[in-house]
Amino acid sequence: MDIKHVNYFKSIVGDDNVFDDKPHLRAYSYDATKQRYEPEAVVFPKNEEEVSKILKYCNDNDIKITPRGAGSGFTGGSLPVNGGIVLALEKHMNEIIELDELNMVAVVQPGVINADLQKAAAKKGLFYPPDPASMDYTTIGGNVSENAGGMRAAKYGITKDYVMALRAVLPNGDIIRAGKKTIKDVAGYNVAGILIASEGTLAVITEITLKLIPKPRFKKSYMAIFGTVEDAMNAVFKSLANGANPVAMEFLDSLVIKALIQKLNAPLPTNAGAILIGDVDGNVKEEIDFQIDVLEKSFKENGCMEFRASSNEQESSEIWYARRNASMATTIYGTLKLNEDISVPRSLLPVALSKIYEIGQKYGLNVPCFGHAGDGNIHVNVMVKDKNDPVEVQKGHKAIEEIFKLVVELGGTLSGEHGIGISKAEFMNIAFNKEELELFRKIKHAFDPKGILNPGKMGL
Amino acid sequence: MDIKHVNYFKSIVGDDNVFDDKPHLRAYSYDATKQRYEPEAVVFPKNEEEVSKILKYCNDNDIKITPRGAGSGFTGGSLPVNGGIVLALEKHMNEIIELDELNMVAVVQPGVINADLQKAAAKKGLFYPPDPASMDYTTIGGNVSENAGGMRAAKYGITKDYVMALRAVLPNGDIIRAGKKTIKDVAGYNVAGILIASEGTLAVITEITLKLIPKPRFKKSYMAIFGTVEDAMNAVFKSLANGANPVAMEFLDSLVIKALIQKLNAPLPTNAGAILIGDVDGNVKEEIDFQIDVLEKSFKENGCMEFRASSNEQESSEIWYARRNASMATTIYGTLKLNEDISVPRSLLPVALSKIYEIGQKYGLNVPCFGHAGDGNIHVNVMVKDKNDPVEVQKGHKAIEEIFKLVVELGGTLSGEHGIGISKAEFMNIAFNKEELELFRKIKHAFDPKGILNPGKMGL
Repeated sequence: MDIKHVNYFKSIVGDDNVFDDKPHLRAYSYDATKQRYEPEAVVFPKNEEEVSKILKYCNDNDIKITPRGAGSGFTGGSLPVNGGIVLALEKHMNEIIELDELNMVAVVQPGVINADLQKAAAKKGLFYPPDPASMDYTTIGGNVSENAGGMRAAKYGITKDYVMALRAVLPNGDIIRAGKKTIKDVAGYNVAGILIASEGTLAVITEITLKLIPKPRFKKSYMAIFGTVEDAMNAVFKSLANGANPVAMEFLDSLVIKALIQKLNAPLPTNAGAILIGDVDGNVKEEIDFQIDVLEKSFKENGCMEFRASSNEQESSEIWYARRNASMATTIYGTLKLNEDISVPRSLLPVALSKIYEIGQKYGLNVPCFGHAGDGNIHVNVMVKDKNDPVEVQKGHKAIEEIFKLVVELGGTLSGEHGIGISKAEFMNIAFNKEELELFRKIKHAFDPKGILNPGKMGL
Repeated sequence: MDIKHVNYFKSIVGDDNVFDDKPHLRAYSYDATKQRYEPEAVVFPKNEEEVSKILKYCNDNDIKITPRGAGSGFTGGSLPVNGGIVLALEKHMNEIIELDELNMVAVVQPGVINADLQKAAAKKGLFYPPDPASMDYTTIGGNVSENAGGMRAAKYGITKDYVMALRAVLPNGDIIRAGKKTIKDVAGYNVAGILIASEGTLAVITEITLKLIPKPRFKKSYMAIFGTVEDAMNAVFKSLANGANPVAMEFLDSLVIKALIQKLNAPLPTNAGAILIGDVDGNVKEEIDFQIDVLEKSFKENGCMEFRASSNEQESSEIWYARRNASMATTIYGTLKLNEDISVPRSLLPVALSKIYEIGQKYGLNVPCFGHAGDGNIHVNVMVKDKNDPVEVQKGHKAIEEIFKLVVELGGTLSGEHGIGISKAEFMNIAFNKEELELFRKIKHAFDPKGILNPGKMGL
């Protein structure tokens, strides 16, 4: 990067907050996809005003900017694929500015770790439900940019359901506020609504106002064993239609169960075709009993062979052991995992899964599946035995493409949680027609006419 | 309107669905604001394809289009202030296309009446919570365009919390889909998010996919009498912070109470300074008891003089009598009501109300207030004794302007429910800075470069 740009950035954020040495460029070149794209410099702004100045300068000088939280994304959203600078928000802009108990609202900077917010809220008897699997290291800014989900989405929804207001900087340096610290606000366009899930391509989010809720007083975990995946999936949506409202309703298929037994000696029945695991919560014990009753009854009417509910923390932890280790266990099937987070209308989960297994068979690949059955969002893991065998890898990618086509045919989406980034960019024209893609480009242009912000993402 | 345009519209929708006679123009010239702006023609499309053809033609021929549902809005959103055609969706595009019990989803056309959807859902044990006061005649398309709220927002949120997907036609005739029939969807920009509350200025919504929830099995109503409005408002947010989760938490101030007694002989205590009215619901009776207990305890700790909970439908109906007749009763204070639906962070309700009363006193006007205390959204009624006295009317408008400035200072919004339309357009620059207004204009331009769709609204 031209030294004059580096010097300008240093004049704004200080000498200690701009780096273009090899170790820094390397450290900020990757994310959870394990791909690498080095930036030309890494800049650590300390506040919104600095973000504004940097964006304005980059806009005037045609320097690309990739905003970055924890870099824990699964689709390359925070990778500087076109060079330029990485604007790293996790180092200085990581404060919980306010935990407002009376309004049950948190105001945070984008670099706050999800789990830190959850802990801070819990200390005041409050609850921030969105719980992406990466919550121990992922940032709220990243969560908002990707509209992160999690296991509790079945009952509590996803990140967008908790964002009340944002502050953000547009590529030209303009500072905007979007939304209010109020439950209802219908004045002006819902700019916060479009910034959520925009993968850092429209603006740099500098402050986030989040709704919190009172922490439910009681919780119980359950596990249900089924003979087949169809039975389990049917049980899921029948129980929900019967009034069950589980916090989480997670699903493991037979390949995952087999892997757990083989790799971890997990105490699971070898004849299980599918397992459902989850929690229920409430303010009174009777609500918990009601929820467990509805689940048990609905499940048993739909082929459940065994149903268990926890009576203490220890039993709850034992129940969750299988789900927590599901992803790790699937590595028995290969050295390369192509992990996609498809989502379909809940009632189509049985047909979606059966066709996904067919696609796996066609290419001779194991496709263990697990995930969020309660909201129709499944992690499909196409396992390639040897990641160094290009023929096998190619088969894996072909299987993924077929799976995406199937999902779109079923009215589902390419991504329930991970976003598009670069990993799914090539599939955007499967999911969207040309008018829709054109509209996306017009929206992008309205916010970022020079295309400096996180370029090369979302297939735009 | 040029006869050639009328003839073109007739060629698309049929002779019986285009009118430019005086009675039709008059019938489609007003809304709940009682202002009148006549269109040049009224067109009743039968389906999305016809909407697309009409929009494309209007775009090519620079004809303004104002989409319209029931015309029940409070801010002039459906008024054709710049002439052109009214595109009336309530006549033919009013079908509930699908009530999907397994996925708990409804797919409806924009002209479906809110109450009709609620009834249809209830028949299947399902529940569509958003309940604007106009629900018996208001359309879902209008509800989405204005992001309608209602009394149940305290527990169940507002329209945007139930919109899963939309189909819409852009001004150039392009048909787009936004969102999916899935809980999670993070592929592409959240176009549905920005269409909600866009007041018909970005696209014509042609189909709406809504989330439904299981109908709670039990419900109870409560009423609490307070000596002062400050006590009542404090009780509201203290109870919520203590874990109360009421379906509704409605508020009447002393002027409203006085009006109810005077006009309707309502059996309310004459020394009441404020009343809270609402419902709690749940799946088990113990949850209801828990909720009522938390409310009663929190209220009594904060100055509640009397607390009553219903034990049957009849008692519930008696409790709600006062709230249902609040708006009508306030007419004792004048012949012109300037009704604004401001919203502030809940904890600032006491200070907001006390300052609103001061503003009323300054102008010698009664300002009875009631509304949705549970979500911080209050209907402020500036009452002008004689609507034919221009000096008094002017005072009323000045009071409104001061109230808006106050609300914005307190971090609140011009509108919690009604939108901006034309009524609040002049106040947009109080609520938004020039960068934010500029961004709104850029978004508008991205969707509607020729400015044909619902022009003159939202101060754009």
